[in-house]
Amino acid sequence: MYSYLRENYTMLFDFYELTMGNGYFLSGYEDKISYFDVFYRKNPDDGGFAIACGLDQVIDYVNDLKFTDDDIDFLRSKGCFDEKFLSYLKSFRFSGDIWAVPEGTVIFPGEPIMTVRAKTIEAQFIETFVLLTLNHQTMIATKASRIVRAAEGRPVSEFGSRRAQGPSGAILGARASYIAGCSGTACAIAEERFGVPATGTMAHSWVLMFDSEFEAFDTYCSLYPGAATLLVDTYNVLQSGVPNAIKAFKKHGITKCGIRIDSGDLAYLSRKARKMLDEAGLTECKIVASNSLDEYIIRDLLKQGAKLDAFGVGERLITSKSTPVFGGVYKLCAVENDKGEIIPKIKISENPEKVTTPHFKKVYRLIEKESGKAIADYLTVYDETVDTSKSLTIFDPIYTWKEKTLTDFEAIELLKPIFVNGVCVYDRPSTEEIRKHCEEELDRQWDEVKRFENPHNYYVDLSPKLWDIKQMMLHGLLKTEDKQ
Amino acid sequence: MYSYLRENYTMLFDFYELTMGNGYFLSGYEDKISYFDVFYRKNPDDGGFAIACGLDQVIDYVNDLKFTDDDIDFLRSKGCFDEKFLSYLKSFRFSGDIWAVPEGTVIFPGEPIMTVRAKTIEAQFIETFVLLTLNHQTMIATKASRIVRAAEGRPVSEFGSRRAQGPSGAILGARASYIAGCSGTACAIAEERFGVPATGTMAHSWVLMFDSEFEAFDTYCSLYPGAATLLVDTYNVLQSGVPNAIKAFKKHGITKCGIRIDSGDLAYLSRKARKMLDEAGLTECKIVASNSLDEYIIRDLLKQGAKLDAFGVGERLITSKSTPVFGGVYKLCAVENDKGEIIPKIKISENPEKVTTPHFKKVYRLIEKESGKAIADYLTVYDETVDTSKSLTIFDPIYTWKEKTLTDFEAIELLKPIFVNGVCVYDRPSTEEIRKHCEEELDRQWDEVKRFENPHNYYVDLSPKLWDIKQMMLHGLLKTEDKQ
Repeated sequence: MYSYLRENYTMLFDFYELTMGNGYFLSGYEDKISYFDVFYRKNPDDGGFAIACGLDQVIDYVNDLKFTDDDIDFLRSKGCFDEKFLSYLKSFRFSGDIWAVPEGTVIFPGEPIMTVRAKTIEAQFIETFVLLTLNHQTMIATKASRIVRAAEGRPVSEFGSRRAQGPSGAILGARASYIAGCSGTACAIAEERFGVPATGTMAHSWVLMFDSEFEAFDTYCSLYPGAATLLVDTYNVLQSGVPNAIKAFKKHGITKCGIRIDSGDLAYLSRKARKMLDEAGLTECKIVASNSLDEYIIRDLLKQGAKLDAFGVGERLITSKSTPVFGGVYKLCAVENDKGEIIPKIKISENPEKVTTPHFKKVYRLIEKESGKAIADYLTVYDETVDTSKSLTIFDPIYTWKEKTLTDFEAIELLKPIFVNGVCVYDRPSTEEIRKHCEEELDRQWDEVKRFENPHNYYVDLSPKLWDIKQMMLHGLLKTEDKQ
Repeated sequence: MYSYLRENYTMLFDFYELTMGNGYFLSGYEDKISYFDVFYRKNPDDGGFAIACGLDQVIDYVNDLKFTDDDIDFLRSKGCFDEKFLSYLKSFRFSGDIWAVPEGTVIFPGEPIMTVRAKTIEAQFIETFVLLTLNHQTMIATKASRIVRAAEGRPVSEFGSRRAQGPSGAILGARASYIAGCSGTACAIAEERFGVPATGTMAHSWVLMFDSEFEAFDTYCSLYPGAATLLVDTYNVLQSGVPNAIKAFKKHGITKCGIRIDSGDLAYLSRKARKMLDEAGLTECKIVASNSLDEYIIRDLLKQGAKLDAFGVGERLITSKSTPVFGGVYKLCAVENDKGEIIPKIKISENPEKVTTPHFKKVYRLIEKESGKAIADYLTVYDETVDTSKSLTIFDPIYTWKEKTLTDFEAIELLKPIFVNGVCVYDRPSTEEIRKHCEEELDRQWDEVKRFENPHNYYVDLSPKLWDIKQMMLHGLLKTEDKQ
């Protein structure tokens, strides 16, 4: 296992987390327990779901949380924090509980993908980093999954480091892409740190460096006879690149090889190149395409009969170019009163989509036993349990007359304990295990949910108890003041 | 000065940089000198220019370059590198030269913003990190500049950490935003590391944590009488938020204060709120707007008479949402032959926009003395000098009959020496100095170039000598083989 200097991100917080923290501290709320949910409201690219990713980095972050003396000095220099609070920060650690869905899990709008129960100052403090990390990697994993599905079994490699939004965008983006099904990455450090297979052969500059394209190919084949993928579009793909590649492969007796086309019409060029390679007896030579690809272009290329065996996808994956923001939010859902009772909290908004679902909750995924496919997700209050030995009637939370009764089903609890009293209790899976989990998760979803456009709307329903509490709070009928 | 563990990004490279490196090493190209240009082809958001940013992180990276024993072991495990090459990597450092435009400089498509002259292996190796860093921060600085200009002098604060693409997206994005004119950030670590002023007051959770909105405001005002900006949209802006804010400000005798509106129609709500605040005598109370803002929305709000004094801009700035990819490229432009002569190289493409400008070059910015404004940029071969005591005729590189003769002008060389023989010779400016330089740079541009849409097309012209070389190479008339 490679060791590296893990950066401490304690100071990566929105400043208001500490102005509020100082405020809670000075207002006697120091030990008040709050519950926050992380959830999102809308699937990227109008798709049917997202893929949770980034938890492992949240765990590192929480484990590493610690203000240095320099940090405290810096905060003091801001002139707005009480000395007692600064002194409290010196021994600040996260001492609460965190539940989260495992990475690689298929997730849906409106359901908690993480719940934090902690002293308010602590729970509030970790908000920025938790959101940033889950939003980023969930977005990239979701995008990568779409691109991988478009490739219909052909390997997709992540190529985008040079266009990533900062170094961690490149490294963690490669990780998220692999988890969601990419075959590997061009980014070497992602293999060293996370075991994402890194590959790569040549750039145009290699070809330009030699006196001729053939000399460049010839040299490369002599150096890497076992892994020769030649870039054939520096001059002209069909008139120069492919003939020179064939000549070089032949000279070195290489049959397991590849060519990469990085410009031009990939459908036309690949069909022509395939014919030339086959006629030369190089039927095993793979054709790899790159150049501004995404799920839509890959789908269209394949529909047009492009003879492509693998894809390298860069900027449109590593930045999720078509939807470069994943809008996960971190919302207060409950607090504990002096007696330790859990008091639900709701954020009411003029915009119905922005109304939160209150309370400390459980998330169940309901699986039809016969097909093994997911039917709906089901949110309950924390003290409810789904009894799969009985039938369960679920209903649409808005059009409540739309009901469905399940009989032969499984109910899987999605939120797993990650931290208990500040200690990580989670058996952290390897990148490879997460990737496998993601594959199984996708297998559990119907194809209708996996469509790129207008997918089937997967339901996230509420238990009757939770639904009642939410309705009463919306109508102002539930007393939620907790300091009486 | 705060010290932190600077992450070593040596291993953040596209794998092909080292398969090529190993190839050059084994093919006797170890000491061959190459020249690479960094340039971009298209302005983001169809704007008129970009703002160079990220050089400081490139300098850190180059200074830190070093393979650890673990790195070498990892590379050995890949099974494709020669032991002699791995041994060479152990003492690998960057020993070449780098020229670059200072951060904060206004830049245009097609001109080198950085030129690297080094042994090919070294020059090629740094490609990934150089591009990733310059692309990311240049993109954010360019976007921030647009948003700041839309705000017409009102402060714009960067609020986007939670939606950034990874931790460095947040931290370096805050840096780039500040350089381009933002007044500050919400991201605390960006102040600690780069001196970007960090601010923040409260989230909706603060308001929800108390029994009433007034209690939340009252508590905040008593804690922060000198910096009370109250978030007024948790329940209802005009019926609850603003009246409660006024009540709290009055109770504490606060006049220098602010309210923030984070939802709803910002034009309507701000006008109404302004009226209520003024009627209460709180004429100095600032109204801050946030919620999915960008340059277009800010411009429209101001056009509609919104009474807004400051803006907090989140996801659309920190990810440059409308154009989340900046397409800077790193292209071979020359090599040195055995005699040390510089041999130009060109990448010819079917797509005219993708043809490179060959040779080791200088970039001049031509300034009209009378107005102090920039007229055009002018690329020359490295051994040319612009003599401002004489007139200079520049011409359109495509429509060559379009000419202009300059008489009373200055010529500023944009590319400054950054590294000489691997040693940083650049007097690195502070973030504040870079920000000031950026402001001066913008002042040098005509308003016509700064329009958001359909800006004046600023010319990047070639000297006659450079133009001739490029034309001869395009027509295959210049012999560029260098190993005769």
